[in-house]
Amino acid sequence: MKRRRWADPPSRYLEEQTQVRVRFQEVDGLRIVWHGHYLTYFEEGRLAFGRRFGLEYRDVLEQGYVIPLVHAECDYYAPARHGDVLTVVARLHPEAAARLTFSFEVRAEDQRLLAAGITVQAFTDPDGALVLTRPAFYEAFLERWADQVVEP
Amino acid sequence: MKRRRWADPPSRYLEEQTQVRVRFQEVDGLRIVWHGHYLTYFEEGRLAFGRRFGLEYRDVLEQGYVIPLVHAECDYYAPARHGDVLTVVARLHPEAAARLTFSFEVRAEDQRLLAAGITVQAFTDPDGALVLTRPAFYEAFLERWADQVVEP
Amino acid sequence: MKRRRWADPPSRYLEEQTQVRVRFQEVDGLRIVWHGHYLTYFEEGRLAFGRRFGLEYRDVLEQGYVIPLVHAECDYYAPARHGDVLTVVARLHPEAAARLTFSFEVRAEDQRLLAAGITVQAFTDPDGALVLTRPAFYEAFLERWADQVVEP
Amino acid sequence: MKRRRWADPPSRYLEEQTQVRVRFQEVDGLRIVWHGHYLTYFEEGRLAFGRRFGLEYRDVLEQGYVIPLVHAECDYYAPARHGDVLTVVARLHPEAAARLTFSFEVRAEDQRLLAAGITVQAFTDPDGALVLTRPAFYEAFLERWADQVVEP
Repeated sequence: MKRRRWADPPSRYLEEQTQVRVRFQEVDGLRIVWHGHYLTYFEEGRLAFGRRFGLEYRDVLEQGYVIPLVHAECDYYAPARHGDVLTVVARLHPEAAARLTFSFEVRAEDQRLLAAGITVQAFTDPDGALVLTRPAFYEAFLERWADQVVEP
Repeated sequence: MKRRRWADPPSRYLEEQTQVRVRFQEVDGLRIVWHGHYLTYFEEGRLAFGRRFGLEYRDVLEQGYVIPLVHAECDYYAPARHGDVLTVVARLHPEAAARLTFSFEVRAEDQRLLAAGITVQAFTDPDGALVLTRPAFYEAFLERWADQVVEP
Repeated sequence: MKRRRWADPPSRYLEEQTQVRVRFQEVDGLRIVWHGHYLTYFEEGRLAFGRRFGLEYRDVLEQGYVIPLVHAECDYYAPARHGDVLTVVARLHPEAAARLTFSFEVRAEDQRLLAAGITVQAFTDPDGALVLTRPAFYEAFLERWADQVVEP
Repeated sequence: MKRRRWADPPSRYLEEQTQVRVRFQEVDGLRIVWHGHYLTYFEEGRLAFGRRFGLEYRDVLEQGYVIPLVHAECDYYAPARHGDVLTVVARLHPEAAARLTFSFEVRAEDQRLLAAGITVQAFTDPDGALVLTRPAFYEAFLERWADQVVEP
């Protein structure tokens, strides 16, 4: 069994929140959200983060980079149901390595934690070759938002 | 950041394989399979496993149990594309704890490893209360298939 | 080839609008929204309608009815792309027959029409038997909102 | 309400069949396949047709054409459930106009008709401009398979 162990990312982070209403067809035969859809909710969180801080796919693409996922994980604590309005908290954890590590929380309206997870994205060039040092544009990005970084 | 660290499951396993053809709409704007769909492929593997060994959702339900996912993770090694016929290897790793841990591999036609991951399912009663010891039916299940277990 | 021809519904309607942001994975390899996702957008429109006017699945279910789709159709005029914020216009067209006919428009931010369609839902009892006359609760529903009906 | 009325396509056809197993997450809270997924099953049928007769997206693309959907419709007769193995019948109906009209049937294992529908695709150039006459490659395609056309 091939398995990479991913260390916890640094605790400090940049954060954005967004809301997602559970769609009818996202609920399975057990009348709870099918587990795979949480990666969609994470994606929604990551995209909201990108819109707020200027780190959308096209922003990255314009700089000559692609940021494919190399890892995703999710722990499930309680189910969500049709019609629930969920809050997705997306946090980018700046780190020295050439990658983007986000952590996520999915919370119910009463703030109960339903799921939490992590995604890791690598930087590659447009041909898919891995980039081993942080791109200059990303260093500039981190500098621009340094005063927004939360130190828990 | 809330994160549970899941130990590697025992190395021995029961295995089933199935094939999945990548659907047109599973490919994203980068013309590769969107990462979230691998949880669908894992599900296909788990269901094929259930059909072969008699551990489908309804088999479990008839015994008075539900087996919700409490964890999923995936490492991505190389992209799949529209029309690819993927092999999904699903392995159940029998363990002393009251849970089902599967590991998965998704392989290309030339056997290259595209993705690998793990899912963990808990046993609950129909009302969602966690069951802390292995149900008798699952003990019987493991006994029935003991001679099929692979010791790597 | 079996095909039912559905007459145009009456032109008068009750209307609700909602907005949908195109998700990353809803875009296909041609970088446009895959055509099947418009049924999701229609569903979002229908649900928003249900929330506004009190005609959600559970409202109907509490009355002892299920409203399965018996027909859906969509004409596509122009593509939507990742990140687009679409307006979904959902209109219920009250009619004498025992069914719910909705028409939909999906519009871009500049109001261009991207897609338009219709769904038809039957009333059945919980066992799936077709109900041939309008249920009393639905007659009351139409009466309650009669002054909101738009006559074009 | 904008609505195009699509005439019945010619009755003769080229046919291919394929099988689809209903996925766990394709079933909704009513434990039946969510109606929108039938467009996925139609797509699976269309792709199987393309593989058999040499009319895949890339075949068309290599000839300099794109074939976006301009219409889809589906009538629902009976529900499918998790684990069902469905047969999708896809029929291309050759016609004089510059478009591809497919009809579909989705059948249960006992051959009961669950759903039937139509999709219409236009020919466009790579920039999306509509092509008004049948491309030469498509005329050649129809000639090549003329003896396989079924006249009901």
